[in-house]
Amino acid sequence: MPDPTTRTRLPADLAIVNCTALLGVGAERATFAPGATIEINGGRFTRIDPHPDGLPHAKQVIDARGMVAMPGLINTHTHAAMTFLRGAAEDVALAHWFNDYIWPMEVNFAERDVYLGTLVAIAEMIECGVTTFADHYFHMDQAAQAVLESGIRANLGAAFFSSQGPDGLTQSLSFAERWKNAADGRITTSVAPHAPYTVSDADLTAAAEGARRLGVRVHLHAAEDIVQTNASLRDRGRTPIQVLAETGVLDAGAIIAHGNGILADDIALLSQHRGRVGVTHGPKGYLKFAFGPLTPIAALRAAGVPVGYCTDGPASNNTLDILEAMRVTAITQKQVTDDPTWFRTGMALEIAGPGSAAVLGMSGEIGVLRLGARADLILVDVSGFHCQPLHNLAAALVYSVQPGDVRTTIVEGQLLMHDRQLLTINRDALLDEFRHRAREITDRTHGRTIQDYTQ
Amino acid sequence: MPDPTTRTRLPADLAIVNCTALLGVGAERATFAPGATIEINGGRFTRIDPHPDGLPHAKQVIDARGMVAMPGLINTHTHAAMTFLRGAAEDVALAHWFNDYIWPMEVNFAERDVYLGTLVAIAEMIECGVTTFADHYFHMDQAAQAVLESGIRANLGAAFFSSQGPDGLTQSLSFAERWKNAADGRITTSVAPHAPYTVSDADLTAAAEGARRLGVRVHLHAAEDIVQTNASLRDRGRTPIQVLAETGVLDAGAIIAHGNGILADDIALLSQHRGRVGVTHGPKGYLKFAFGPLTPIAALRAAGVPVGYCTDGPASNNTLDILEAMRVTAITQKQVTDDPTWFRTGMALEIAGPGSAAVLGMSGEIGVLRLGARADLILVDVSGFHCQPLHNLAAALVYSVQPGDVRTTIVEGQLLMHDRQLLTINRDALLDEFRHRAREITDRTHGRTIQDYTQ
Repeated sequence: MPDPTTRTRLPADLAIVNCTALLGVGAERATFAPGATIEINGGRFTRIDPHPDGLPHAKQVIDARGMVAMPGLINTHTHAAMTFLRGAAEDVALAHWFNDYIWPMEVNFAERDVYLGTLVAIAEMIECGVTTFADHYFHMDQAAQAVLESGIRANLGAAFFSSQGPDGLTQSLSFAERWKNAADGRITTSVAPHAPYTVSDADLTAAAEGARRLGVRVHLHAAEDIVQTNASLRDRGRTPIQVLAETGVLDAGAIIAHGNGILADDIALLSQHRGRVGVTHGPKGYLKFAFGPLTPIAALRAAGVPVGYCTDGPASNNTLDILEAMRVTAITQKQVTDDPTWFRTGMALEIAGPGSAAVLGMSGEIGVLRLGARADLILVDVSGFHCQPLHNLAAALVYSVQPGDVRTTIVEGQLLMHDRQLLTINRDALLDEFRHRAREITDRTHGRTIQDYTQ
Repeated sequence: MPDPTTRTRLPADLAIVNCTALLGVGAERATFAPGATIEINGGRFTRIDPHPDGLPHAKQVIDARGMVAMPGLINTHTHAAMTFLRGAAEDVALAHWFNDYIWPMEVNFAERDVYLGTLVAIAEMIECGVTTFADHYFHMDQAAQAVLESGIRANLGAAFFSSQGPDGLTQSLSFAERWKNAADGRITTSVAPHAPYTVSDADLTAAAEGARRLGVRVHLHAAEDIVQTNASLRDRGRTPIQVLAETGVLDAGAIIAHGNGILADDIALLSQHRGRVGVTHGPKGYLKFAFGPLTPIAALRAAGVPVGYCTDGPASNNTLDILEAMRVTAITQKQVTDDPTWFRTGMALEIAGPGSAAVLGMSGEIGVLRLGARADLILVDVSGFHCQPLHNLAAALVYSVQPGDVRTTIVEGQLLMHDRQLLTINRDALLDEFRHRAREITDRTHGRTIQDYTQ
C-alpha cells in the first residue's frame, strides 16, 4: 500500500536515488551520506534525505548507484570564447603572449565567434561538471545567448579598456543592467573593467558606482602576479589592491582575478570588505607563465576572504576543467606553505563549493546540496579502477577523479548531460562550424591589436 | 587491380590506418604525420608510412581517423600493488605516512594481494595509455604473474631493506635472474634495494655487482628530497648520489627515484654514468608531501642525464596517470626555472617517449614509433571539445588530453584495450575480489611495521 503522505503531494520534477551525497564540507573533512535520495522541484532542492524510506515521488527518477552526488562545480573566472585560441600561443612569456598572439588575434573575433566559442566552452564545462561560470569577455550578448540556449548558469561581464574611450564603460554597465537576473535568474552579471593597469582610476570609480547602483559586483584582473604589483608600486606608489580600495571597487564588491601578487598589507584591505570580495585562483596557467609566488590562499582564508577556483581562459589554461584546478591548487598550496597537512581534501572541496559560490556573491544559492538552494548538481562515477578502493571518498574526488567520470550534469533542475550525452547542445553541428572558423581566427597579418600590454 | 608488391608478401598482424602519427619529438617541437599507416608484425613496427598508397595488407585493420597514434606511455617508477592503499593516508607528512600508515599496513599484504593490487594497477595503466611500468615492490613473483596475464610490459624489481638480513638481497638478485627477459622479453628486471638510508653500503655494493653480472640496472630511491640529502650529509658526510657512486651503483646502471634532493655536484657524478643512469620524476606526490625544491631537470638534461616520468605508488600519487605526470612536470618546471619558454611541448613529449625509455635502459626499443622498435602504441582521440581546435597538436597532448581520450592500447602488437574495452582483464571479477580484500588490508591494530623511517 503506498505511503499516504506521498500519495497526496504533487510529484517532484526529478529524483535522484541511491547516490552517495556530499552533504557537508569543511576545512578538516567532508561528510557523505550513502544511499541518499535527492528531490528537485521548480529548480530547487526540495528534499535531501540521507535515510530515505520508500520510493521517491517524482516525474523522473535517476538511479545513481555507485555515484557521488555533489554540488555542480563553479568556474569563478574565465574568458569562455577563447576556446578559439586554445593552443594558439604556447611556451611564450606573458607580454609576448598578449602583444604578439592573443590581442592581435582577438581583432578577428566577430560577434558570432563569441557565440560559437562560448558554446564550445559551455559544452566542455558541462562535460567536466561545471554548472556555473563567471565570464569576462567581449560581445557579451552573444555569450548570454549561448548561456540561454545551453541551460548552464553564468555570471557575465562585458570587458572594457579605457583605451576604448567612454563607450567601453557605458556598454559594460548597460550589459550588466540588461541581462541581470535573466533566464529566471540563471544569468547574473558583473561590471567588467579589464584591470587597473588598462583602466583609469576614473573609470574604475565609475564602474564601482555603477555596480553598486545595479547591485552587482565588479569583475576584473588585479595583482595578477608580483610583476604587476611591483610595477604598480613603482609607477603609482600603491598596489593594485590599494587602487581597488581607493576607487571604491572593493566597497562595491569585487571578483578579483588572479591575486598572485597580493601582498600582506593588501590582505587587511580585502578583509575589511570580506563579505563582498573574493579571489579566484587557477594555478595551471600561472605555472605555465612562471608567475613566481602563487596566491597567498592561507593568509586570505585566515583573514576571512573567500577564494574560489577558476580556469582562466582556455588560451592560457588549455582546459576548462575545475577538477584539475582543484587538484593543482591542493598540491601546490601544500608545497608553497611547506605543510602537507594543510589544504586537506575537505578544504579542497569546501573551496569548490561554498568558497567559489562566495566569490561570486552566491553563498547558499549554489555550491551546496541544501534544501532551497538552486538545484545544480553532478553525478560522479567513482567505480573506476583509478578511484578504487574508496578508503577516502573525498581524496578520490580531489586526487583521482577524471572529467570523464562526471556522468550527469544538472543545472536548475534541468538535465544538461546524462550518461555523458549532451542534451542541450548539438555536438557535431557546433564543432563543424567552430573548426571551420578557427582556421581563420588566428590570422595576424593585419598587424592590428586590441590593446598593448606594458608594465 | 591489387598492388603486386603487397599481393606477394605475407599480411601483417595488425595495421592502423588514417592516424595522425607522432613521428618525431625534440626539445623544440614534435612532428606529426596525418593520414599515416602503421603496420605491426611479430610484435614490432614493420611499416610506418606517412604517405600510404593503397590499402594495407594485414590480418586486422584499425581505422584511427581523428586519433593520434603515439608511443605507449612509460611509468618509470611505481609500487603497483599499493593500489590497495590508495587514499589510505592523506594529508600527512612523509615520516608519519610511512611509520604510522603505510609500513604498518604493508605488514598485512599476502602474496595474493600483490597479484590483485598489481593487476588493478595494470588495468588503470592500460586505461590511461601506459604500456610499460617499472615496479619496485615485494612478492614480485605475483606481480610478474599479473604482467604475464595482462600483456603489459614491465621492468620488475624485488625491493629489500638491509633490516631483512641477507635474505632480502639474495631474493632480489634471484628474482632479477629468474624473470629476466621472460614473456618473450616483455618482462625485464632490476635489482631493487630500497634506498641508501635503509640499505647498507655493503648491500648496495653487492646489489651493484649482482646487477652488473646479470646485465640489469639497480632500481632504488635516492635523494628523494632535500631533507634526505641533508641528513646524509650530516650523518655520513656525503650525498646519497655520492653513496651510489662509491658503492658502484651508478657504474652498474641505476634507475633513481626521485632525485629532488640532487645537488649541483651530484650532477657531475651522474653525468659520468649518463649512458646507464636515469632519474624518474613524478611531481604530484612530491607537491602533496611539500618536498621543497623539485628535481633539477634542466641541469640534469644539460648534463646529458636522462629524465623520465613516473607516478610513484598510488598510495601517495593516487593515480597511475602518466599524462598527468607529464602535465604537472611541464607546468612546475616552467615555474621553478622561471622560464615559460622552457619545457616546451616537444620536450614534454620527448621525455614521455625517448627520455623515459632511456631511464629504463630501453632506448630505441620503446617510446618511439620507429621501424623495428617494439610495437607499443596508443590511439588518442583528440576530437573532444576540450582539445578543439587543434592549433597545436602537441599542446593538446600535453595540456588538454584526458585519460579517457586514450581509446586503444597496444603492447608488443597485442591489443590490451580497444575502444575503451579491456581485452585481457576481467574487470568485474577483479574489482570484486580487490574491494573485498581492501577492507581488511588497512588494519593497523597488530602494532607491527615492516621498517622504520628515520632521517
